[in-house]
Amino acid sequence: MRYRKVPDETIRRLPGYLNGLLFLAKQGRDNISSYNLAEFLGVNPSQIRKDFSYFGGFGVRGRGYKIQNLIKQVGKILKLGTARPVALVGVGNLGSAVLAYPGFAIYGFELVAVFDSDPGKIGKTKNNIAIEDVANLDKLRERNIKIAIIAVPRPAAQQTADALVDAGVTGILNFAPCYLKVPKKVKVVTINIATDLARLPYYMPTG
Amino acid sequence: MRYRKVPDETIRRLPGYLNGLLFLAKQGRDNISSYNLAEFLGVNPSQIRKDFSYFGGFGVRGRGYKIQNLIKQVGKILKLGTARPVALVGVGNLGSAVLAYPGFAIYGFELVAVFDSDPGKIGKTKNNIAIEDVANLDKLRERNIKIAIIAVPRPAAQQTADALVDAGVTGILNFAPCYLKVPKKVKVVTINIATDLARLPYYMPTG
Repeated sequence: MRYRKVPDETIRRLPGYLNGLLFLAKQGRDNISSYNLAEFLGVNPSQIRKDFSYFGGFGVRGRGYKIQNLIKQVGKILKLGTARPVALVGVGNLGSAVLAYPGFAIYGFELVAVFDSDPGKIGKTKNNIAIEDVANLDKLRERNIKIAIIAVPRPAAQQTADALVDAGVTGILNFAPCYLKVPKKVKVVTINIATDLARLPYYMPTG
Repeated sequence: MRYRKVPDETIRRLPGYLNGLLFLAKQGRDNISSYNLAEFLGVNPSQIRKDFSYFGGFGVRGRGYKIQNLIKQVGKILKLGTARPVALVGVGNLGSAVLAYPGFAIYGFELVAVFDSDPGKIGKTKNNIAIEDVANLDKLRERNIKIAIIAVPRPAAQQTADALVDAGVTGILNFAPCYLKVPKKVKVVTINIATDLARLPYYMPTG
């Protein structure tokens, strides 16, 4: 099956849906209506129906969605079917938090390589992974690692991105609060903590 | 002026637009077309026009947007006009990264209170802020702090949220990878690192 072009916003929401669906499946649920799924996920039911419509729906009117089928289809769309090795650059506070972060495995991700520029850290082991010299990022190519997380200070972020792209990385999760210039074939997702914080006041009661 | 109900997705994007607009203003720009603004921000021009349409547009066809006016309007919509004190709960790796995070100030946020449960940390000072006992979260009310960041381990997240709500907090930025049950008047934004990572493979070339 060939899918229509899917909006970025839909792709952004799908991993969250998948997360919720996996949780429901673990609890032994077989079916769920878009209304109940939406309530469980805290989103709009029409939004969920619209997002799933890009892939042909999956649901039967009045009978809801088959959870296992949905998990399979969403995983396929997101190309999460295979195990994917991930590299982390930067083992400061943020990088250390990423190393200890639970929940990568449900999507098939495994942190397998960690880099830093600090000679005091290089060679040491953290969470069972030896910290390598950031000067050796080019080794990612031979290890076929295509996804990397940037957790370096802002001034080092662009040069890190450049080195990752040179090493064949095509997917970057960026924590540095800045825009990264990369070739078109490379996808960057930036997590900006301040931008997310700035969404709160709109919803808060005044006074 | 009374605004129409604005979709959550639009509110989610506005802080990013504001960030870009502030950058452009700092570079001395006065005007920008929705096309150029979209290109600069890496989003769809029609998306930007639609998002701004909820507040009456702001733009003049063919002449683009006045940047300073846009900054003022978007800031007003997001209720970012006033300085807002923020509390942080949890000073592990992630909390320490949040404490050192640059860029809160452009939105008017200031981290003024930090809490942890570790007796070895309580009383110590980090980034010029004394770490307080998490048992004293109820003091947030008298200090009129309405926004808090949860950076505690997942098992402690819900009880932390409960204590924050009891203390009058109505806006929570949550880093724990779990759903938090809160009253309707409280807004929670969760940053899930794994979910964001899971958006990458869709865009990446295969092989």
